[in-house]
Amino acid sequence: MARPIGLFTGQWADLTLEEVARKASAWGFDALELACWGDHFEVEKALESDAYVQSRWDILNKYNLKCYAISTHLVGQCVCDPIDTRHKSILSPRLWGDGDPEGVRQRCAEEVKDTARAAKKFGVPVVNGFTGSSVWGKLYFFPPTSQADIDAGYQDFADRWIPIFDVFQAEGVKFALEVHPTEIAYDIYTTQRALAAVKNHPAFGFNFDPSHFIHQFINPVFFIEEFGDRIFNVHVKDSRLQLNGRNTILSSHLDFGDPRRGWDFVSPGHGDVKWDPIIRSLNRVGYEGPLSIEWEDSGMNRDWGAPEALAMIRQQNFTASNVAFDAAFASKD
Amino acid sequence: MARPIGLFTGQWADLTLEEVARKASAWGFDALELACWGDHFEVEKALESDAYVQSRWDILNKYNLKCYAISTHLVGQCVCDPIDTRHKSILSPRLWGDGDPEGVRQRCAEEVKDTARAAKKFGVPVVNGFTGSSVWGKLYFFPPTSQADIDAGYQDFADRWIPIFDVFQAEGVKFALEVHPTEIAYDIYTTQRALAAVKNHPAFGFNFDPSHFIHQFINPVFFIEEFGDRIFNVHVKDSRLQLNGRNTILSSHLDFGDPRRGWDFVSPGHGDVKWDPIIRSLNRVGYEGPLSIEWEDSGMNRDWGAPEALAMIRQQNFTASNVAFDAAFASKD
Amino acid sequence: MARPIGLFTGQWADLTLEEVARKASAWGFDALELACWGDHFEVEKALESDAYVQSRWDILNKYNLKCYAISTHLVGQCVCDPIDTRHKSILSPRLWGDGDPEGVRQRCAEEVKDTARAAKKFGVPVVNGFTGSSVWGKLYFFPPTSQADIDAGYQDFADRWIPIFDVFQAEGVKFALEVHPTEIAYDIYTTQRALAAVKNHPAFGFNFDPSHFIHQFINPVFFIEEFGDRIFNVHVKDSRLQLNGRNTILSSHLDFGDPRRGWDFVSPGHGDVKWDPIIRSLNRVGYEGPLSIEWEDSGMNRDWGAPEALAMIRQQNFTASNVAFDAAFASKD
Amino acid sequence: MARPIGLFTGQWADLTLEEVARKASAWGFDALELACWGDHFEVEKALESDAYVQSRWDILNKYNLKCYAISTHLVGQCVCDPIDTRHKSILSPRLWGDGDPEGVRQRCAEEVKDTARAAKKFGVPVVNGFTGSSVWGKLYFFPPTSQADIDAGYQDFADRWIPIFDVFQAEGVKFALEVHPTEIAYDIYTTQRALAAVKNHPAFGFNFDPSHFIHQFINPVFFIEEFGDRIFNVHVKDSRLQLNGRNTILSSHLDFGDPRRGWDFVSPGHGDVKWDPIIRSLNRVGYEGPLSIEWEDSGMNRDWGAPEALAMIRQQNFTASNVAFDAAFASKD
Amino acid sequence: MARPIGLFTGQWADLTLEEVARKASAWGFDALELACWGDHFEVEKALESDAYVQSRWDILNKYNLKCYAISTHLVGQCVCDPIDTRHKSILSPRLWGDGDPEGVRQRCAEEVKDTARAAKKFGVPVVNGFTGSSVWGKLYFFPPTSQADIDAGYQDFADRWIPIFDVFQAEGVKFALEVHPTEIAYDIYTTQRALAAVKNHPAFGFNFDPSHFIHQFINPVFFIEEFGDRIFNVHVKDSRLQLNGRNTILSSHLDFGDPRRGWDFVSPGHGDVKWDPIIRSLNRVGYEGPLSIEWEDSGMNRDWGAPEALAMIRQQNFTASNVAFDAAFASKD
Amino acid sequence: MARPIGLFTGQWADLTLEEVARKASAWGFDALELACWGDHFEVEKALESDAYVQSRWDILNKYNLKCYAISTHLVGQCVCDPIDTRHKSILSPRLWGDGDPEGVRQRCAEEVKDTARAAKKFGVPVVNGFTGSSVWGKLYFFPPTSQADIDAGYQDFADRWIPIFDVFQAEGVKFALEVHPTEIAYDIYTTQRALAAVKNHPAFGFNFDPSHFIHQFINPVFFIEEFGDRIFNVHVKDSRLQLNGRNTILSSHLDFGDPRRGWDFVSPGHGDVKWDPIIRSLNRVGYEGPLSIEWEDSGMNRDWGAPEALAMIRQQNFTASNVAFDAAFASKD
Repeated sequence: MARPIGLFTGQWADLTLEEVARKASAWGFDALELACWGDHFEVEKALESDAYVQSRWDILNKYNLKCYAISTHLVGQCVCDPIDTRHKSILSPRLWGDGDPEGVRQRCAEEVKDTARAAKKFGVPVVNGFTGSSVWGKLYFFPPTSQADIDAGYQDFADRWIPIFDVFQAEGVKFALEVHPTEIAYDIYTTQRALAAVKNHPAFGFNFDPSHFIHQFINPVFFIEEFGDRIFNVHVKDSRLQLNGRNTILSSHLDFGDPRRGWDFVSPGHGDVKWDPIIRSLNRVGYEGPLSIEWEDSGMNRDWGAPEALAMIRQQNFTASNVAFDAAFASKD
Repeated sequence: MARPIGLFTGQWADLTLEEVARKASAWGFDALELACWGDHFEVEKALESDAYVQSRWDILNKYNLKCYAISTHLVGQCVCDPIDTRHKSILSPRLWGDGDPEGVRQRCAEEVKDTARAAKKFGVPVVNGFTGSSVWGKLYFFPPTSQADIDAGYQDFADRWIPIFDVFQAEGVKFALEVHPTEIAYDIYTTQRALAAVKNHPAFGFNFDPSHFIHQFINPVFFIEEFGDRIFNVHVKDSRLQLNGRNTILSSHLDFGDPRRGWDFVSPGHGDVKWDPIIRSLNRVGYEGPLSIEWEDSGMNRDWGAPEALAMIRQQNFTASNVAFDAAFASKD
Repeated sequence: MARPIGLFTGQWADLTLEEVARKASAWGFDALELACWGDHFEVEKALESDAYVQSRWDILNKYNLKCYAISTHLVGQCVCDPIDTRHKSILSPRLWGDGDPEGVRQRCAEEVKDTARAAKKFGVPVVNGFTGSSVWGKLYFFPPTSQADIDAGYQDFADRWIPIFDVFQAEGVKFALEVHPTEIAYDIYTTQRALAAVKNHPAFGFNFDPSHFIHQFINPVFFIEEFGDRIFNVHVKDSRLQLNGRNTILSSHLDFGDPRRGWDFVSPGHGDVKWDPIIRSLNRVGYEGPLSIEWEDSGMNRDWGAPEALAMIRQQNFTASNVAFDAAFASKD
Repeated sequence: MARPIGLFTGQWADLTLEEVARKASAWGFDALELACWGDHFEVEKALESDAYVQSRWDILNKYNLKCYAISTHLVGQCVCDPIDTRHKSILSPRLWGDGDPEGVRQRCAEEVKDTARAAKKFGVPVVNGFTGSSVWGKLYFFPPTSQADIDAGYQDFADRWIPIFDVFQAEGVKFALEVHPTEIAYDIYTTQRALAAVKNHPAFGFNFDPSHFIHQFINPVFFIEEFGDRIFNVHVKDSRLQLNGRNTILSSHLDFGDPRRGWDFVSPGHGDVKWDPIIRSLNRVGYEGPLSIEWEDSGMNRDWGAPEALAMIRQQNFTASNVAFDAAFASKD
Repeated sequence: MARPIGLFTGQWADLTLEEVARKASAWGFDALELACWGDHFEVEKALESDAYVQSRWDILNKYNLKCYAISTHLVGQCVCDPIDTRHKSILSPRLWGDGDPEGVRQRCAEEVKDTARAAKKFGVPVVNGFTGSSVWGKLYFFPPTSQADIDAGYQDFADRWIPIFDVFQAEGVKFALEVHPTEIAYDIYTTQRALAAVKNHPAFGFNFDPSHFIHQFINPVFFIEEFGDRIFNVHVKDSRLQLNGRNTILSSHLDFGDPRRGWDFVSPGHGDVKWDPIIRSLNRVGYEGPLSIEWEDSGMNRDWGAPEALAMIRQQNFTASNVAFDAAFASKD
Repeated sequence: MARPIGLFTGQWADLTLEEVARKASAWGFDALELACWGDHFEVEKALESDAYVQSRWDILNKYNLKCYAISTHLVGQCVCDPIDTRHKSILSPRLWGDGDPEGVRQRCAEEVKDTARAAKKFGVPVVNGFTGSSVWGKLYFFPPTSQADIDAGYQDFADRWIPIFDVFQAEGVKFALEVHPTEIAYDIYTTQRALAAVKNHPAFGFNFDPSHFIHQFINPVFFIEEFGDRIFNVHVKDSRLQLNGRNTILSSHLDFGDPRRGWDFVSPGHGDVKWDPIIRSLNRVGYEGPLSIEWEDSGMNRDWGAPEALAMIRQQNFTASNVAFDAAFASKD
């Protein structure tokens, strides 16, 4: 059976969950992936109130939508990051507190643990999110960044996240890092290093999102082939190179949607991601979870784009062969 | 007449100036570009002692070498950067002091002003260097970085550097920023923004170094065509893409020389820089200053590579046409 | 609201306007762009007879079609061209007269002025067309063509067209040159030169048609970004490179449809034009006029191709985003 | 009128003809191309029994399907091949006999003659198939393979197949070799050589299948342009390059469907074949026969893929232009 | 023995032959190819005066230089061209006369015949040159250019040049057209057409110059393979693409040396011509004539460039293998 | 110290060893790699006669040449191959015997063991060679080749070669397979499989020759990175793609040197091998053995090419860095 297709609600957090669900259902989506911000899924309320949890399911059920995962990108980011004023805008006052960096990091670490507990209570097996990184800002090695500096960053990640992963494991829930620049893992080599740092913790895996690989020139299929058994969620999102000899893959400090940028996010199917090889590879590693559209395109109306993206991925979502051609007719040409 | 070819001493700071001069002269270099670190050119001594200044010239003259510029990358970097432990390793104790970030930044700003004064005294018209940047670390816009955040970074650059450039102007010396990731300008759009921030200050220009453009996919010729009248120095340095579908242009937090990196510096002529169009463009904008080899290659013996690089660029260093073909014979085929 | 999609009738001039309108309406087009040849729109009749003008609208209205522009490629071409026998075949006997080149050019110039008047009377704000060029034939500089020769060509363009543009301005109608080899402007630099020659006359702008850029290796988006406020009409037409190492982009003097040609026009969607970036760019510059399919493909049945092209561009005709993602949910991943 | 679209039954030989016909009809196919293996079309029975022949037509007629060709790849292969154990698995015991290579080859040659007779009786004008080759295994010239060795291989092909082609000619049936590695012809130069060897025998032509050209880097259009008048059948099949710097176009001795292979067959539309130029070229050479989908993709469910492939090629199967644009309106832009 | 390397004097016509010979000899050239303009080789004088002919050889002998061909590009161009004011600047007053186009064409035709006679007298077997074309200006088919128009252009070429070629044949001299845009032949298909037009006249062949093919995307080797037996001279000249998305292969009406042009001539070895495959192909077709450097580069000093180009081509000028590897050791790996 | 550069004598077997040595020495080679065919190194004589062994060294010493390896490609090939008439031409009558395949294979296996013994006696640590393969001819899987068939081929390799490798191990000599189509290993995956088949036998390694990878689209550096510790010899040989849309990477059954082939061997430096990354990678894995030029180019005179190739690789043969840039001057820009 083909994989269900969902919509990630993160980019629709300006709408109520009811509004998002109504739209998604009308367009034909099978599921929602709920963001833990806006009113879509509030961790604190979920842990406090059974009624709140039920209210979420009531909305989903009313629109005949499933849910396979919730997402905690914003809070997760603050667990390892050097905290600055930008983080204040993505956190609730409760988590920001007085803004002292270490305090923020520790409160967010606790919140991620609570998110595992809330997922368990809500009945979904996966929490997607970010981890932050104490060494992301040191990626271009000037002033000279030693491998000791980098190793310290991966140790910091291990120190902060192993206790969190232990809670996930206890709850029977997985944490799926969306591999992404700004995070502890953003390509294949850093993913290997992150896994090594936490000694391949069984609760740690990935939310595969090819849009973050394309403009880094990473082949998304290589990621699936190598980490296939740790892919717990898939985002359908797209990115496009728009290099012109004047700009850079580093984005020139220009905003999303600025045509001078070296790359930008675009509606799935309009970018450089090739979906066919990804589907084949997901078939090979046996991924049967949802394909969750994370819709973001600064140059297209989202009500135009989301159903178009759904149609695109629905058409690509083919299943594996169940025939051995050679065996069946002993002939090949 | 062809441009002189120099050697930048920064990567040879483990040797005395005398040793570097002896090697460079034997290989056939015309000039040295002196680093303001190691014993090659010490700003404080130069301002204090005429004899010190003369001692530098004595060495240069002994080996029949010219000097067209000195370089202050390390100190310049600390003027705008958020200071962390890595900066301590590139500063003298005098400049690091107690390590309080703002104090470090201010001491370094004063030191760059002194470097202008020392250059004047030493008799060279250009100081190359870095500027640092308070917003480099925010290049990949998560957590969300607003254009207001970025604007503040360029304003900080202007606030700190305009007073420095005023000293340069008063001394009749130019400051040449090496456009480079980690700096306030790293591509063409950020260079435009930096120039705008300082209102096109006449003492501010560039040390053109194509090696930092190549792995960003910037066409170095576009830079020369746009900023040709502000190119005060040229570095001959090379870079090479080595993308393999697993790594990234962001370097995977791997060290220079690691074959898994997405790009690396290589000896001039061994990378992806195309020198012919650069020479033509420099001819067009009338650049007559030195071509200064900044030799850095983690995979090659430097005593093997430096003379090879000199031979390579000597062969490319052609002059412009002084014949109008059509006028001379009224025919073209 | 999405832009209307029209059909340019130039390639259907063997059919009556009624026949073209019936087909276009049945296929689902929103509008027609009327060619000023065949019986589709006759300038002389329009100026003479209100009934004629009404008869055109009667047909359009009967089939529920709009009209946003008329087109005068054939007559416009003869304003600046060195006239030869090929021009006779594209002009009416009235305009050809005795074929004396300067007489032809002047009669055609008057006819274009009349076309502006007819457009005003017909109630459309744009006349698309060609300008011709006295220097096109000198593009490959042998025998040696001096810049003085070329400058004279642009001056000739200015001398002949400024009086025409003045009539357009008086009538409140725009002239939209289809930038195209054989015309005074065929790429971005020649477009700059043509604009400069007529001192940016306010009645002068462009009918953007990417098919003429593709085989010249021009990026159509660069054209939109630079001249966006002067784009008065858009043609949806496609072109394809078919270089094979034996032929040339100069077409080898071979007919359209000959597979040995280096490029050829093909049905929109079958060539090398990428529509998505064009739509984004048109959205950015605020172009809200029609997308007018100019259907021409020597290898495909036009009744098969025109509705397919309509479906293709209808699917691409998306509108701009009206959400600021960052503002709405303060998060980006 | 557009070409009919068929399904080649070779990869469905595990199903009865009735079952294949029912599926194909339901999906909307126009025709079947019957494999001479499985129960789809048995040559021996066809020659023996009129009722058998009628039974095949009864099934086809019941599902409103046409038939334009039958296929004898397996038996044909054994006419020229050095016989080894693999051939046993593709032959009936009757043809394999004692397995003595020359005996096998001769029995298979007679069987192919009978296939021509059966085709005549069945009422189809074309038999598709393979020829085998005594020199395929010597393609990479070590141990040194002389042109004399190769010439001998083509002579062997002529000696064995001219008598077969004579029977085809007598029956008024064509033999259409599927040009393919492992056969006497696998690219354009070997096709020329094969044609020369049999002195352009009029009964010898080709089953054009672009999937075998793609991973050889052959342009399928070049084949059509050169051999257009000898194309008697067309297979719609696709192939994809998946080179990764570690594998090879020679397939690494890895099975179909192994992601490490340098290329693989994929469902039509999912590979590197570009159908538009092929359709144009088939239009030019006047090919009006069927487009027969040979569906083979080790990574996709065939019941998902076959109807998708049908829709894809149906949409591409356009007809040639019947308008001379220039003549009709004496204008081009 | 390796082919001799010459210098074409056309681009040095501002210097006396003596001056050019002195330079060329000092740089190490083996030969000169004399332009029939400037004072290098004057046809009229050569026919009138044995002493003049001897004076040319005296200079060549003094500098130990050979001569294998003379060149008549300017006069040849005027045989078929529509004559305009540009032609006046490339002709002597004697040939221009009153400038009446047909008179100019006829006088130039006679002059080319005389050039054949002068070559015979001078003792060189080849005259290089241009032919002009009455249809070059109609290459981009608007206004609609019919194949009848084009055919008439090739007939005009035949009518004017067959009588000239007859004189060449009578004198035992070859005419070598430099295939080039603006001429009757500029790619492989137009070369085929030109040959057909003159019924493969034995005195008609080619001066192979790859620089004119490169920016047309023609593979120079394809030309040699097809017309190898008619290559009578070879020019070593180079060209480079510099497309930037704004300009065009049609050159934007910009002057040579303008960096905005889509292509430009550059010193041999600095452009996109690959010399190795050309040398191999010349070896295969048995070309043993000179490699004549036509040096033209608007961005490089010619006294710097000519000797560099000589060194480049000297290093590439290898001879064919005289060993059959397989025969010699019956082994290949 | 830089690696020594040798010449492999295989392609010079038509000359005596003395003649080859004289040439190689004059050109400046450091060493010879002796072919075990022609009179260069005869295994049987070496085992029989100490004087013979000394005679080889006498010649080498006379010309001041070293020797690091001998090569047994021809005999090695026959150990696993299905034997046909081509093998007769590469074997001595003694080894061919009656030509019965199994007998040939066994005699050759014994001869390779003797070659190990002769190498030991001669004092060189490496024997380069081929292995043959019983499954090479089955590479393109029609008739259907099962993985069981392929597995059997690798088992056959193991059965025949493990006893040989045991002799090598006993003698303290290595066998270096030149990975190559027609052999048991021809890319990275088949090399892995071959190593697995012989359980990573310590006497088994590789003669790295990038020319066989290039036209297979394998990245030679990936081979070095993966098998670096088993590289016992390096061949400097080059290959070039010459695909033209009509031919194939499978070579079209055309001879070396035929310009229609899809690829061909060319003199080192004239092909698609990039030597710089190979040298870097060899430096990284610590390979300090010879770079042995195997010169083969059907389009170039070998006496012209061999010294040119020597100069090319001498210039590329750089050594690794012995400076840690960061450590030395704590700065990087």
